[in-house]
Amino acid sequence: MNYYFTKTVDDPMDVSIAKITQELKKQGFGILTEIDVAATLAQKLNVRINNYRILGACNPHFAYEALQLENKIGVMLPCNIIVQEREDGRTEISAVDPVASMMAIPNDSLANIAGQVREKLSSVIENC
Amino acid sequence: MNYYFTKTVDDPMDVSIAKITQELKKQGFGILTEIDVAATLAQKLNVRINNYRILGACNPHFAYEALQLENKIGVMLPCNIIVQEREDGRTEISAVDPVASMMAIPNDSLANIAGQVREKLSSVIENC
Repeated sequence: MNYYFTKTVDDPMDVSIAKITQELKKQGFGILTEIDVAATLAQKLNVRINNYRILGACNPHFAYEALQLENKIGVMLPCNIIVQEREDGRTEISAVDPVASMMAIPNDSLANIAGQVREKLSSVIENC
Repeated sequence: MNYYFTKTVDDPMDVSIAKITQELKKQGFGILTEIDVAATLAQKLNVRINNYRILGACNPHFAYEALQLENKIGVMLPCNIIVQEREDGRTEISAVDPVASMMAIPNDSLANIAGQVREKLSSVIENC
């Protein structure tokens, strides 16, 4: 199985991140964390990669429900969306499939929530 | 398979987080993100859970290697350590097992890195 949903859009990176933020909001998600991977690697290792951001998205209703079902699920939260700048100026956006990342967890009720979150994140990518 | 390593320590939460930060540093990891889950849920849903933090830890060498092998691996980074305050004042600390979270990804070289990171994170929990 694939572990992410992805799409390449014509928008430059900053416009794309603004759209993702809006689409996440429509699905009840806020962005709790943002990592500038390229800047971190440049600073720590002195290497250069294309602009690469990791946005940590959280829908508090689903997160609360998941935590009640599976107290340690925080080790796999929030759900990430990555945003990568391509050489041609277009932007590649990809969201984690939580069904894939949580497949090692034997909890059917959690799998049900992961399935609902999967639908929402796949819609975010589709609508961007 | 289990998807985390866990331990309960006598330290209060702030002391525990300081120790985790130190032990992560010894293994080459920095903390890139911190989410106060209890505060977020209180603010968004007006519900109360015990103090619960998600620390996003990253070892830049492993992250860079992983990204070269699997460009979309950012959807599963950083590796989380969760810190939970218990009713008795003790603190439960748990680290993700990246071998479990990445098991849906069919990439043997990545699995090898995940195995090395697993060892390091399990040592962090052990030594706290």
